[in-house]
Amino acid sequence: MAGAVAASRDLGIRVALAGRPHLIRPLLAKAGPAPNVYIEAAEESIAMGEGALASWRRPRSSIAVACQLVRRGQADAVISAGSTAAIVATAQIRLRPLPGVGRPALAVALPTRPHPTVLIDAGAIADPKPEMLVQFAQLGVAYAEIAHGVAKPRVGLLTIGAEPGKGNKLARRGHELLNSDPPHGGMPISFAGNVEGNDLLAGQVDVIVTDGFTGNVALKTLEGTASYSAAQFRTAITSSAVARIGAMLQRRALHQMSERFDSETYGGAALLGLEATIVIAHGAVTARGAAAACKLAAELTERRITERIRERLGPSRAGHFLRRP
Amino acid sequence: MAGAVAASRDLGIRVALAGRPHLIRPLLAKAGPAPNVYIEAAEESIAMGEGALASWRRPRSSIAVACQLVRRGQADAVISAGSTAAIVATAQIRLRPLPGVGRPALAVALPTRPHPTVLIDAGAIADPKPEMLVQFAQLGVAYAEIAHGVAKPRVGLLTIGAEPGKGNKLARRGHELLNSDPPHGGMPISFAGNVEGNDLLAGQVDVIVTDGFTGNVALKTLEGTASYSAAQFRTAITSSAVARIGAMLQRRALHQMSERFDSETYGGAALLGLEATIVIAHGAVTARGAAAACKLAAELTERRITERIRERLGPSRAGHFLRRP
Repeated sequence: MAGAVAASRDLGIRVALAGRPHLIRPLLAKAGPAPNVYIEAAEESIAMGEGALASWRRPRSSIAVACQLVRRGQADAVISAGSTAAIVATAQIRLRPLPGVGRPALAVALPTRPHPTVLIDAGAIADPKPEMLVQFAQLGVAYAEIAHGVAKPRVGLLTIGAEPGKGNKLARRGHELLNSDPPHGGMPISFAGNVEGNDLLAGQVDVIVTDGFTGNVALKTLEGTASYSAAQFRTAITSSAVARIGAMLQRRALHQMSERFDSETYGGAALLGLEATIVIAHGAVTARGAAAACKLAAELTERRITERIRERLGPSRAGHFLRRP
Repeated sequence: MAGAVAASRDLGIRVALAGRPHLIRPLLAKAGPAPNVYIEAAEESIAMGEGALASWRRPRSSIAVACQLVRRGQADAVISAGSTAAIVATAQIRLRPLPGVGRPALAVALPTRPHPTVLIDAGAIADPKPEMLVQFAQLGVAYAEIAHGVAKPRVGLLTIGAEPGKGNKLARRGHELLNSDPPHGGMPISFAGNVEGNDLLAGQVDVIVTDGFTGNVALKTLEGTASYSAAQFRTAITSSAVARIGAMLQRRALHQMSERFDSETYGGAALLGLEATIVIAHGAVTARGAAAACKLAAELTERRITERIRERLGPSRAGHFLRRP
């Protein structure tokens, strides 16, 4: 509530809260005056542990209601901190895919410098077809252009060796397709070749393409290792009275670093390839993270990312990747 | 050379160095007296950039000659710091698989506490069959028992969600097979269910099973993130004169931590499932790391890991996973 109210005020946008009104109202009242925040009743919800099936069983879940607002033209984007599997499944049922997109993919901004690196797909589709890797590349390039202002984003393919023949069957075929010229109907992709797990934070490319299984394992490995390393460091630099004095002297620098690593700064993952963008925030998101998620959704929408994806995928696409006519 | 000489002296083992004698001899002379280190001439070598094909083209490469020593009963284990793909391919051509092992897999010890966690397969087979995941589990359990002294190792399957239905096709089928009772002919596996990327360093299970593609991406992501985090921390704690004074006060604790994270302490990855164990050290290994690799190979051999793998896989195995009769 607090994040939605803050975003509505700071960004000058209207925010609809989908959910049970009797639960939302008291929390919203506490968050202060909010003339541009209103409630959209949803009787059901999908719990964090529930998967894709629940999306079929609950046509009036809060995420389904939010998607419905987009379909009716009453909203431009959706933000949720629910179960990723349930959000992806609901969005695929409720929203139309953009022409040429077989399945929407999840884009995550990794904290590289000078700008973030886009990892796509970070977990929407566990078993994509090789052709979808090219679509992910187009979605990721549009995201890097729009969200990070990169002029001609360089695309890498996540695999297990630098040479073209390295990887599993999917990655090897994906490499061939990304490398093909003229490239698969859409706008040209600036393909920089294979990258490996240790390149995720290297900032050598602007977009890293992979299947949703590998991408999700890699993302969670990265997050887990970063937080493990931070905990180890904190223990080391406060392990003795003398070391603790040292930590006091470093307080400001350590705080700045943890800010930069804080995933909430980035707003969350963006589900791309549907008629509207869906931002998925962390399940344990704070008010600050929720506001950042609203900001990301607003920015992507204002800068017309779906239009950019349409352009990149090209008007002359054959329908063979489409799931619906 | 220095690592081999040190290992030979400290462990009381004989070490054969396979390679070009005129290159080895001067380096060996510099490493000091080495009565138990001798040279086995190999005219060819496989460069780091070369892949599996080079293994067929170079029957007299140093790694092929080393494997030949094992086949002739003149060596018990092989250590190499060469290209992983070339080592795996050469070993598969030159050495016999253990009964019931379709393809050998790469086991890596992750630095968890109180004992390391075994990640298997860390990169030998990019596209395994689901049945092979069960073999990897058996190999990993034998490794955890022998190398880490774990009594009844718990096995987790690396995937993208806690529930059994989560993951790609391979992981879902792997889950079913690992969960089946009675389990697939061999000794029972203590299967603890799915784990995710952020569980790699959590120490909740003793063995984490995955395909070689995902395992290699996860391992390199972990290594890359750990070294990135360490670099960020070093920058933060030395970013000002005041902070640098703090870092001086923490010197001892920081040194102890970096020791524990140093992959050289662990000796390298072990290729399991062949008639002898092959330890693959990092390509940029130092003398200390080379000695640790020799120590790991010696320990696994002395504690009879291949016998343990034979026991675990069971005598009554059908031949349907075998590549050779």
